[in-house]
Amino acid sequence: MPDLPEFSHVSEDGRARMVDVGHKAPTERTARAEAIVRVGALIADQLQRTGAVAKGGVLETARLAGIMAAKQTSSLIPLCHQIPLSVVRIEAALEGDTVRLESFVRCHHTTGVEMEAMTAVSVAALTVYDMCKAAGKGITIESVRLLEKVGGKSGTWQANDEGIS
Amino acid sequence: MPDLPEFSHVSEDGRARMVDVGHKAPTERTARAEAIVRVGALIADQLQRTGAVAKGGVLETARLAGIMAAKQTSSLIPLCHQIPLSVVRIEAALEGDTVRLESFVRCHHTTGVEMEAMTAVSVAALTVYDMCKAAGKGITIESVRLLEKVGGKSGTWQANDEGIS
Amino acid sequence: MPDLPEFSHVSEDGRARMVDVGHKAPTERTARAEAIVRVGALIADQLQRTGAVAKGGVLETARLAGIMAAKQTSSLIPLCHQIPLSVVRIEAALEGDTVRLESFVRCHHTTGVEMEAMTAVSVAALTVYDMCKAAGKGITIESVRLLEKVGGKSGTWQANDEGIS
Amino acid sequence: MPDLPEFSHVSEDGRARMVDVGHKAPTERTARAEAIVRVGALIADQLQRTGAVAKGGVLETARLAGIMAAKQTSSLIPLCHQIPLSVVRIEAALEGDTVRLESFVRCHHTTGVEMEAMTAVSVAALTVYDMCKAAGKGITIESVRLLEKVGGKSGTWQANDEGIS
Amino acid sequence: MPDLPEFSHVSEDGRARMVDVGHKAPTERTARAEAIVRVGALIADQLQRTGAVAKGGVLETARLAGIMAAKQTSSLIPLCHQIPLSVVRIEAALEGDTVRLESFVRCHHTTGVEMEAMTAVSVAALTVYDMCKAAGKGITIESVRLLEKVGGKSGTWQANDEGIS
Amino acid sequence: MPDLPEFSHVSEDGRARMVDVGHKAPTERTARAEAIVRVGALIADQLQRTGAVAKGGVLETARLAGIMAAKQTSSLIPLCHQIPLSVVRIEAALEGDTVRLESFVRCHHTTGVEMEAMTAVSVAALTVYDMCKAAGKGITIESVRLLEKVGGKSGTWQANDEGIS
Repeated sequence: MPDLPEFSHVSEDGRARMVDVGHKAPTERTARAEAIVRVGALIADQLQRTGAVAKGGVLETARLAGIMAAKQTSSLIPLCHQIPLSVVRIEAALEGDTVRLESFVRCHHTTGVEMEAMTAVSVAALTVYDMCKAAGKGITIESVRLLEKVGGKSGTWQANDEGIS
Repeated sequence: MPDLPEFSHVSEDGRARMVDVGHKAPTERTARAEAIVRVGALIADQLQRTGAVAKGGVLETARLAGIMAAKQTSSLIPLCHQIPLSVVRIEAALEGDTVRLESFVRCHHTTGVEMEAMTAVSVAALTVYDMCKAAGKGITIESVRLLEKVGGKSGTWQANDEGIS
Repeated sequence: MPDLPEFSHVSEDGRARMVDVGHKAPTERTARAEAIVRVGALIADQLQRTGAVAKGGVLETARLAGIMAAKQTSSLIPLCHQIPLSVVRIEAALEGDTVRLESFVRCHHTTGVEMEAMTAVSVAALTVYDMCKAAGKGITIESVRLLEKVGGKSGTWQANDEGIS
Repeated sequence: MPDLPEFSHVSEDGRARMVDVGHKAPTERTARAEAIVRVGALIADQLQRTGAVAKGGVLETARLAGIMAAKQTSSLIPLCHQIPLSVVRIEAALEGDTVRLESFVRCHHTTGVEMEAMTAVSVAALTVYDMCKAAGKGITIESVRLLEKVGGKSGTWQANDEGIS
Repeated sequence: MPDLPEFSHVSEDGRARMVDVGHKAPTERTARAEAIVRVGALIADQLQRTGAVAKGGVLETARLAGIMAAKQTSSLIPLCHQIPLSVVRIEAALEGDTVRLESFVRCHHTTGVEMEAMTAVSVAALTVYDMCKAAGKGITIESVRLLEKVGGKSGTWQANDEGIS
Repeated sequence: MPDLPEFSHVSEDGRARMVDVGHKAPTERTARAEAIVRVGALIADQLQRTGAVAKGGVLETARLAGIMAAKQTSSLIPLCHQIPLSVVRIEAALEGDTVRLESFVRCHHTTGVEMEAMTAVSVAALTVYDMCKAAGKGITIESVRLLEKVGGKSGTWQANDEGIS
């Protein structure tokens, strides 16, 4: 039987705790995350037809919302550290009947930016939902996941299709 | 061919726009949304074994983060209105190898609280990810969706399995 | 034996919950709260001597910080509702070797503003501490308490010296 | 007669001013602060009886609110610097008819975290008040004070019972 | 000699005070404001040439920043009330060697939205500066002013060229 | 013909982008900015007569609002980086029939603080408008501009009267 995983953010008696990063040296760290919003064929069609118009409005607003949200991560996620980010990048593209959002975040700090990358695409995806919901409330954010993180003591991690690791 | 859907949040020339709710009378409105976080069997097992301990720390922190985030919705989603909420409720439960989060939001206002319900479960799900990520970065938020909205001009809408509508 | 008190903000199984104020009609509600900061004789003397100078800088900054904090109450206190406030007033005075802060908050809403009044004087008191701490880190906020609340279903409540009620 | 104390946060003509920390090298700094909330015997009894239930809900929510508030200190206290915190820890315990909250904050920065430690316990104490106030509005935060600060040019300071220093 | 004007936001002894709007009935109120950013001929030319490209990026980002800032007005301006806004609209256009921003804000509340309209165009103008500053730090926001406010006890006010009134 | 200026914050296909400052070493950087608020002769007269009274209330509140806003710059301006500031200073003076605000901001970071300096005076100017608007809605913020920036790769820049550069 495999060892049970350890929760760094929960104390032995079950209380939430912030990880102390005070003993760590600042290093370069990056993370990439992805969100997929299934908007459906009709909405995708409409976004496609109107080209730079509706698509521009929706995708650009989502990108900006995601960038701004990344900077608010430590206000939203209770145990996250405040990290001055070097850059937040978000790509947004219509792929079939989905909108795919991918974030890239970099910092030079004592802890990583996985949550910033995840928060960026989550809020970008919520913004896509918000802007398209009049046309279909059944739009679903069907995946928010980390793609990669680089740097820090645990080194590089990349998503694969073999399950959670 | 069906009519193409209309985007209330994008102007005809493709610019983001806020919907004017000034002409609407305030009425009771509610919304429910759901997020599913696939944590995997090992983490689920660990959460289950430690019972009130790790599960309590993780799920209660996620619930509180979601409640607080719902109140920040209009700061996060660019075109959302500021809505004084009557209540935000979040349920969090371990179901198989997933954590399921469900929100319920109520207001008495001129526009609905779908985005508040969606934001609540999104941030709760991100918090689950944050607190368990040391044990598995491949944890995936595999669904964030609206379950129901009640009230307002368009009346009641409920999710079904027949696709986006 | 008296009945045990009831916690409106905790569910029967111990989870934090927001009170649903959706069924309540908005009414006029006010609250007053007080904080006492014991700055000690030397600092009080210095504040007194410099009159409009140091006292002005310290007390005015504290008043403004308290007013601004009252408007952030629902972002700080997890289960508080967002309440558009009609007014926040804060008085600040040097009394012996203490600074006394008193807030008055009014709203027309479905729930009361006790927490806004308490938050206003707490943050004002912290600001006094911040601005004087170079002259004495042992300054103590020795009391933060509600003085009165008026309006709402439970009517008027006033602090007395007979203990918690 | 002792020298009058100096206010670093007030200019000679009485205006609020932020201290310039630009010439200081970042060093390890910590601070601990304490808040005591007198909830009264009945509420303490109820919290005690319900054990992990009501107490868990109240104390855990207060701890999380305090952690999150510490990260907002520079938004609340006008002249505070923005400090990326290495860790915020809050302990919460029922002691007799009081709830005692103690914070520990660490940073590696050019200025100390006394205000972060004080803000953390203040907001945690307000949260205890909020969650118990339905059972007794006379609950009083009867002390918020710094216990210790370590690091920085002025070195270590510890609270004692000899008064403000 | 004309009567000296009255400052509603300053008490007789010179302290900042929030106006109490608790006795006022909510009514429809709107405001429009304008900001002019002189970007200079070269930058205007570059914005013009690249058409939907650079201009789109700059002006759309500025519009969104302004909309989002309007919702934060009460957090930024110490004595402003929290007002749930019905709509915020911002137009942005290149006019000669300037970018002209115009906001329109509507609420149904007990006080007006002049500050929300002014804050919207100010932050939009700062965003234009930010996005173009690499090409010319001498860009100047050369006017931020109220154009019109409608509703409330004092009725309609419109800017004219006859000076402050 | 001069080279066309380059927009660092817009990608080649017109999308807003954050500049990556991850490769830059932190250095000392400062910036100064100025805002001029034309309040008109009557209001200036009233501010002047009441001396420390109305002027103190208005100018001190504006200064504090500007200091606090500088710390929120990255929340307001979409593509700004989060920069822990070493100091924010704001001077406010009545000059003829104008209020002149000047900010000075310092950081030790990988990018400069021009936007923080500009945001500080903009919000201070909005606060002057807010506090005086009851006496004259035609008050105009007639200039917000950078005076100087020092440090960073591009070195020192100072405003001159020869136009945008």
